[in-house]
Amino acid sequence: MNVFMDYAAATPLDSDVLAAMQPYFAEKFYNPSSPYAPAVAVRREYDAAKSVIASIIGARSGEITMTAGATESINLAFGAGDGHVVVSNIEHQSVLSVAKRREHTLVSVDYNGRVDPVAIKRAIREDTWLVSVGLANSEIGTIQPISKIAEVIRQVRAERFAVGNATPLYLHSDASQGAGQLDLHVARLGVDMLTINAAKMYGPKQVGLLYAARSVKLQPQIVGGGQEQGLRSGTENVAGVIGMAAAFRKADAKRHGEVLRLRELRDAIQTKLCDVFPEAVISGHHKNRLAGHLHISFPGLDAERLVFGLESRNVYVATGSACAANKGTRSHVLTAIGLDDATADGSLRITLGKDTNPDAVEYAVDAITQEVHREMKRIGRV
Amino acid sequence: MNVFMDYAAATPLDSDVLAAMQPYFAEKFYNPSSPYAPAVAVRREYDAAKSVIASIIGARSGEITMTAGATESINLAFGAGDGHVVVSNIEHQSVLSVAKRREHTLVSVDYNGRVDPVAIKRAIREDTWLVSVGLANSEIGTIQPISKIAEVIRQVRAERFAVGNATPLYLHSDASQGAGQLDLHVARLGVDMLTINAAKMYGPKQVGLLYAARSVKLQPQIVGGGQEQGLRSGTENVAGVIGMAAAFRKADAKRHGEVLRLRELRDAIQTKLCDVFPEAVISGHHKNRLAGHLHISFPGLDAERLVFGLESRNVYVATGSACAANKGTRSHVLTAIGLDDATADGSLRITLGKDTNPDAVEYAVDAITQEVHREMKRIGRV
Repeated sequence: MNVFMDYAAATPLDSDVLAAMQPYFAEKFYNPSSPYAPAVAVRREYDAAKSVIASIIGARSGEITMTAGATESINLAFGAGDGHVVVSNIEHQSVLSVAKRREHTLVSVDYNGRVDPVAIKRAIREDTWLVSVGLANSEIGTIQPISKIAEVIRQVRAERFAVGNATPLYLHSDASQGAGQLDLHVARLGVDMLTINAAKMYGPKQVGLLYAARSVKLQPQIVGGGQEQGLRSGTENVAGVIGMAAAFRKADAKRHGEVLRLRELRDAIQTKLCDVFPEAVISGHHKNRLAGHLHISFPGLDAERLVFGLESRNVYVATGSACAANKGTRSHVLTAIGLDDATADGSLRITLGKDTNPDAVEYAVDAITQEVHREMKRIGRV
Repeated sequence: MNVFMDYAAATPLDSDVLAAMQPYFAEKFYNPSSPYAPAVAVRREYDAAKSVIASIIGARSGEITMTAGATESINLAFGAGDGHVVVSNIEHQSVLSVAKRREHTLVSVDYNGRVDPVAIKRAIREDTWLVSVGLANSEIGTIQPISKIAEVIRQVRAERFAVGNATPLYLHSDASQGAGQLDLHVARLGVDMLTINAAKMYGPKQVGLLYAARSVKLQPQIVGGGQEQGLRSGTENVAGVIGMAAAFRKADAKRHGEVLRLRELRDAIQTKLCDVFPEAVISGHHKNRLAGHLHISFPGLDAERLVFGLESRNVYVATGSACAANKGTRSHVLTAIGLDDATADGSLRITLGKDTNPDAVEYAVDAITQEVHREMKRIGRV
């Protein structure tokens, strides 16, 4: 049996999505800017795909800029203004990197990884133009109170208006980890900008978007032929955007059922492992957490050894976020929520997805139990 | 019969290329940064694909940054320094747009669209750090004397060294239109930076690269997880890069034969149309021109009407570059080579590619002849 439980790092392209993309590789390969009818048809189908995506998040097509994935989208969002920005201290590396190029304030989270909207309000200065908080954390799965933060933003805007401070204030959220599990409706979230990634919802890699409300004045990072209303030049990724629309539509339609299904499976893993290993530490908010997400630490063990042991049993899980994992550094997220080093270093991130079923769960729990026991024995703990 | 003759705007994905990409959509979908064996294998295969690409252009893998197409690559190249840049006045919109954001000098071309290396030398100032000239023009197909321009660059560097001017000077070339028809070996071209686009060589759209010699200090435009040696963050487009390698290898292997084949077909179209319409104007250098490229003007006619007439006969050609065509403005390239408005407005760009064969040529020549006659009749010219 092969058990992939690292859906937060990558998802396989759905076969329906690939089928939707397929015609655009060769048969309908035209440049959407070409004038003849088959190319004009491709332009229309590209625009229709953007409309599908827009309607899922309750936006207008013109408010969506397609990008090559979430990282570019985040960079584009942060380029929309100058001045001070506020981000949480558990943001993904792509948000932290771009924030650190600017004057910024990092807002701490609690031990569940939750950002307190009041702390956001305190961090906002007179010259703050952007607050960016990820919708759900990629390592521990904690879901942030974005609509509560949006309320804070509205309060500050009203206060600024009252004193004649004309500095705009926007709320951006990186929802890379949310699609298929969370509501991404921009009005319900209350965001001005939203980053979405096709690669995490069984869509193609290197396809993403930035939603930006019309009040936001985006500045193009990549200039040239003037595609995407001049905000992101380059011949359009037709197959990719068609694929993202198909993936998003499917993920959104299955969302409610999938959340219940994944939560049950995740809770089964969590309960079983905590029964056998009462010293295990679960991170992330107990309730406001992605349904398919389990971050579990075995204090004193070496997570990398566990990952490789599990790999030999064909169970694939992560030690932390894919980005941080590769660099041998301790996760900034686990430090931020106050995990001590011995606990952090023994952490597995187990993320479930569409092919996860009760058999896979049983197999994985068994493999993890055996590997954790083996490691404990090796270091003389039992 | 369906005759596509707009290969300079878009190329269909080659079936071998799609076959090479296919495993990476679902079966090998792993994030190359994940630690377990199947993901490590994907990392290795991704790196191998980059090596294939590097070896075709005579570069090291580490000198290549994968991007989402040519436009991003060009933007990345121009971000490698501050100060004055020199570009030709017939560059693609993506080069012109990025040059115009900086202090720049536009160098004029002759009526064949050729850049004079001496003119480049004259335009270089003490503070010039970058010269960018496209390898082959996308509208008229003229191939530039890049290695001659590289000699000029070397002279200027020597002169700067002699007087103690430490400003670096680099040569960049956008080779988007060259792959599969021209030698893209960086040492033979003498370039410090080179932009290549998979979408114009039967590879996937939105996949490209920037070659930059190790002496060039690129500045990342998109920051985050630190992929591509920190120069371009975002989870790698594994399928896309595998596809680009397969496409490039195939295009390069078939290059010599394909150039002869396309030139013969192109010359046949040119000869036949010029026989029937002696007033037709051929643009682009008669010899240093892309083999599959034909830019032909019928002075006084309306090229858009011709394109739509040809479309009704299932022959697909362009009026100008795909980017400019959509905007109803006159091509800056045709103005630069001195075509009068009446000639420019009657221009077709006919570009051949892998599915072009003698039957297609015969069909297209016949269709073009009839449409040109019809238009002439409509405006009372015959």
